[in-house]
Amino acid sequence: MKIAVMGAGAVGCYYGAMLARAGHDVTLIGRPNHVEAMNRNGLLLDFGSSQEYVSVTGDTDAVGVTGAEMVLFCVKSTDTVEAGAQIKPFISPDTIVLSLQNGVDNAERLSHVIGQPVIPVVVYVATSMGGAGHVRHHGRGELVIGPSAQSQAVADTLIPARIPVEISENAEGALWAKMILNCAYNALSAITQRPYGEIVQGVGVWDVMRNAVDECLAVAKGCGVTVPGDVWGAIEKIAETMPGQYSSTAQDLARGKPSEIDFLNGYIVRKGAELGIPTPTNLTLHALTKLQETKSA
Amino acid sequence: MKIAVMGAGAVGCYYGAMLARAGHDVTLIGRPNHVEAMNRNGLLLDFGSSQEYVSVTGDTDAVGVTGAEMVLFCVKSTDTVEAGAQIKPFISPDTIVLSLQNGVDNAERLSHVIGQPVIPVVVYVATSMGGAGHVRHHGRGELVIGPSAQSQAVADTLIPARIPVEISENAEGALWAKMILNCAYNALSAITQRPYGEIVQGVGVWDVMRNAVDECLAVAKGCGVTVPGDVWGAIEKIAETMPGQYSSTAQDLARGKPSEIDFLNGYIVRKGAELGIPTPTNLTLHALTKLQETKSA
Repeated sequence: MKIAVMGAGAVGCYYGAMLARAGHDVTLIGRPNHVEAMNRNGLLLDFGSSQEYVSVTGDTDAVGVTGAEMVLFCVKSTDTVEAGAQIKPFISPDTIVLSLQNGVDNAERLSHVIGQPVIPVVVYVATSMGGAGHVRHHGRGELVIGPSAQSQAVADTLIPARIPVEISENAEGALWAKMILNCAYNALSAITQRPYGEIVQGVGVWDVMRNAVDECLAVAKGCGVTVPGDVWGAIEKIAETMPGQYSSTAQDLARGKPSEIDFLNGYIVRKGAELGIPTPTNLTLHALTKLQETKSA
Repeated sequence: MKIAVMGAGAVGCYYGAMLARAGHDVTLIGRPNHVEAMNRNGLLLDFGSSQEYVSVTGDTDAVGVTGAEMVLFCVKSTDTVEAGAQIKPFISPDTIVLSLQNGVDNAERLSHVIGQPVIPVVVYVATSMGGAGHVRHHGRGELVIGPSAQSQAVADTLIPARIPVEISENAEGALWAKMILNCAYNALSAITQRPYGEIVQGVGVWDVMRNAVDECLAVAKGCGVTVPGDVWGAIEKIAETMPGQYSSTAQDLARGKPSEIDFLNGYIVRKGAELGIPTPTNLTLHALTKLQETKSA
């Protein structure tokens, strides 16, 4: 199958590499240095214990999406509207479009821009870029995708490529659950530039996270979303299993890049205001992250 | 009059110098480098447009308090209990003890340690240390003191020394009003290491400050305190009149010193918990300040 990946970050490169490795024709749209490296040597898929170069096509322009039967949309939430407008001329009504992004409203926002349905995908993977054209896989990799006429076809393509896929009626709830974890940790790690294991040792930090999560759950409820699983249990576990981890927001700020905070705590604040649900903790975490973001910029 | 100043920081040095200049016998208890400079050259009282050396006695030990008829207690809130225990052996029941400190419970805590009454004082002055034995006066200087049998005598001593004094039945409320300003600004400036004028330009920051202030006012009410004046108006004014100012908490953190945050937002959180009043914004500001404090330490 001809597949395009819009956004050659760590998530896009990982899934693009897994699909190319399984024999699909994969084009990744990304920045010049990555594209050049991928076109020169292939994409280096690095499992730590083993590495392999996978043959893919890199393109710096959205025109590379042309002819793709499936598009994995993997840009940051801040870039959804702009990147959506870029691919719109090069997709057809038959193109299957998947949003593999953080936050809960990207599929909806993207769908609005491109004028056709987008399947929301919850991504559970730990990856990072090791350099130009070099993606590192640290763990997991499974996807939960929303229901649609095309979802079974998507699963049938991805599963043989060793990408576990579950089609869930409540993918939206799973997206929320993931976002709520992000709302608990990302800002705290970003504002202080400290890893999860250190954060949770701070005075009152568990109370702050509990308040943030309770506000998120109230907003989810107000939105009619049922958040599956034991969110708080998952949050407690993260501090134990990933004590040295810095949030993606912390990494963005450290690099002077805009973060996704407007689509995490910022989203909760906006939705809370719409619904009349108080979100003082998320408001404070969002405001402080934005202050730190503009400082480092 | 023989007067001792416990804590030769910027506030203690300023009032000590004003009293010594008016002819009183003033001893300041402080750190070795300040004490040495004061004993060598006198205390340099620097008004910007004019400077003068004032003759005082410096001492690194609380024994220097011996024989004082009045003690100005000017240590940080974090040091109240320890410094109170240090002066206790050297004061008598007749010694007038004034607490010139931030926070609202220092007079009470000090009184408990030394076993005699302490007059709470609200300090409105802008001063800073310009080096060892060198205090800079930037503006104001007036005091509001609580009522007591000795308060009139205190005023009669201070006013001729060009220290404006008002005796107020609601000195406690004035202390709260000052603390609430600190609760609005200090943590935000400390966490981000940015001055007031930049902070208030951040997304949602006025809402964060409004929430923090509303929580403080609710706790004040729960404590039976009437906060005088237009607190919110004063807060809006600070950003205009002192845009380049960093909070004392920000300065402490930048120097790797413990801050007074446990006696500002932290006090609101503790009192709120006692009274069953939610304080999520102050909790978040306090927790983040403590995280930044332990990072810089």
